[in-house]
Amino acid sequence: MDKRQLIQCHDRIKPFIHNTPVLTSKSIDAMVSANLFFKCENFQKMGAFKMRGAANAIMQLSKEQRQHGVVTHSSGNFAQALALSAQSLGVKAFIVMPKNAPLVKKNAVKEYGGRIIECEPTLVARENTTKQIEKEKGATFLHPSNDDHVILGQGTACKELLELHPDLDYVFAPVGGGGLIAGTAIAAKYFGKHCKVIGGEPFEVDDAYRSLQSGTIETNKTTNTIADGLKTQLGDRNFPIITQNVQRIIRVTEEEIVQAMRIVWERLKIICEPSSAVAFAAVLKEKEQFSGKKLGVILSGGNVDLNNLPF
Amino acid sequence: MDKRQLIQCHDRIKPFIHNTPVLTSKSIDAMVSANLFFKCENFQKMGAFKMRGAANAIMQLSKEQRQHGVVTHSSGNFAQALALSAQSLGVKAFIVMPKNAPLVKKNAVKEYGGRIIECEPTLVARENTTKQIEKEKGATFLHPSNDDHVILGQGTACKELLELHPDLDYVFAPVGGGGLIAGTAIAAKYFGKHCKVIGGEPFEVDDAYRSLQSGTIETNKTTNTIADGLKTQLGDRNFPIITQNVQRIIRVTEEEIVQAMRIVWERLKIICEPSSAVAFAAVLKEKEQFSGKKLGVILSGGNVDLNNLPF
Repeated sequence: MDKRQLIQCHDRIKPFIHNTPVLTSKSIDAMVSANLFFKCENFQKMGAFKMRGAANAIMQLSKEQRQHGVVTHSSGNFAQALALSAQSLGVKAFIVMPKNAPLVKKNAVKEYGGRIIECEPTLVARENTTKQIEKEKGATFLHPSNDDHVILGQGTACKELLELHPDLDYVFAPVGGGGLIAGTAIAAKYFGKHCKVIGGEPFEVDDAYRSLQSGTIETNKTTNTIADGLKTQLGDRNFPIITQNVQRIIRVTEEEIVQAMRIVWERLKIICEPSSAVAFAAVLKEKEQFSGKKLGVILSGGNVDLNNLPF
Repeated sequence: MDKRQLIQCHDRIKPFIHNTPVLTSKSIDAMVSANLFFKCENFQKMGAFKMRGAANAIMQLSKEQRQHGVVTHSSGNFAQALALSAQSLGVKAFIVMPKNAPLVKKNAVKEYGGRIIECEPTLVARENTTKQIEKEKGATFLHPSNDDHVILGQGTACKELLELHPDLDYVFAPVGGGGLIAGTAIAAKYFGKHCKVIGGEPFEVDDAYRSLQSGTIETNKTTNTIADGLKTQLGDRNFPIITQNVQRIIRVTEEEIVQAMRIVWERLKIICEPSSAVAFAAVLKEKEQFSGKKLGVILSGGNVDLNNLPF
């Protein structure tokens, strides 16, 4: 994936996304002894960066493919993103969700016109149900993170950030399925002057950290983290990009995630979700390393359940 | 107070305040069947519009007065606003606070360099302690809302909003001590094309609503509201302005306040405090009246205690 492709992707999806604001805070700068620039994807359409990749992936389909719709399995932000992008583009979206998914998530997908197909809450059921929809409806499967078009789309957030602040020393992004961090790394390579990319990942689901250590894609045995968007694992499309272009991954505890989220809420006065606080938690954890630097932080989303807050 | 005075006030305080962003939301517009423009004073310095009036009031003092400092009694946003404005202008700020005020509020005042003088939690103790500071230190007393310079300062938020959207049909603001709504009414008169001003007030502290009915300043016997910034009463400086320039006041229940706050958090992805949700609650309460109109809403502040949320 090269610079031209990223520019084309951005031009393509611009009518369907917000160029989200970049916020700063004197008190956070003082806390870190650095200049921080928060790229606020919590203000993105449907509340997360996932809108970018979903829109780009659908727009790459042929006219015939679009006529038969798209399908994915997700109970998180990609489900909503695919539903809303598909709706914006006049395409049907089938969303496979475990039947025990929270009602608030199902309602959000429905609100954006997505058609929910419920399945048993197991990996096998999820994949079988998805394959069935592909076969029955002729719908095209789109993966939430391990897809070149999705990766490019997610990279446009960092591209926008660097267009405003091309001299950032570092950009921090959370690592879940790897789509955002891979896209961010591509954008930093082509649009930064000297911008290094660092990932933030919860200790509880540190598969990407371990994958970078071992050189092969590792998995998580347990997923006990509040950062529910980061439970997924890397794939063969994004792992090589991450290996080559991400400087390192900083792991953070659950307590550090909640503390970072609290600082964003209290100081920036904005709602970010736990997964998106992980990148900022990584900055705080090793702030001595970044003293005096210009740091970008991708606040990836703002979809929280207000009835279930960690404070 | 005329147009020229409001313009001069705004020019004077500009270096000390943010021209805060105005946010919109398609889903909220759909909910109300109108176009809403939220003036986000939760992003103001120290987290509330009070910064505007405090800065203007201090800047009106003589050099000699400034040398002896300023004093107020407040355990809310005006305490922080006076402390921070005074600090920005190199003036001492004495803040009289009841000794049982929450630690988080005391710490915020200290963070901005304010000198706290504790008193017993009674009206008499508060006033006596304030008078004592005026006498001992020669400090000038500044009232949080019943002061022409404070009123003008608060009006600059609506002035900024109308400079962006001069054709608003209505602007909604919460009513507490009356400084914000009076300033808003002055700004609407001189900077709106045909802009009416409506106040939002909790049923539990509906002194302003009753004052407009009776024609004299009424008080509250109880103050059982989550909107802790709206417990104070009108004064002789702002009441005549409100009487002449505010169309009416819409009262809302505690449940309606929390519901409005939740919608702002979930849809706009920003933190607003209960007091600031009251104006939006008033819109929601009578939304049929405002169908198809352009509505400004002053979101007055974003200082909440995350350990004590209503959801």
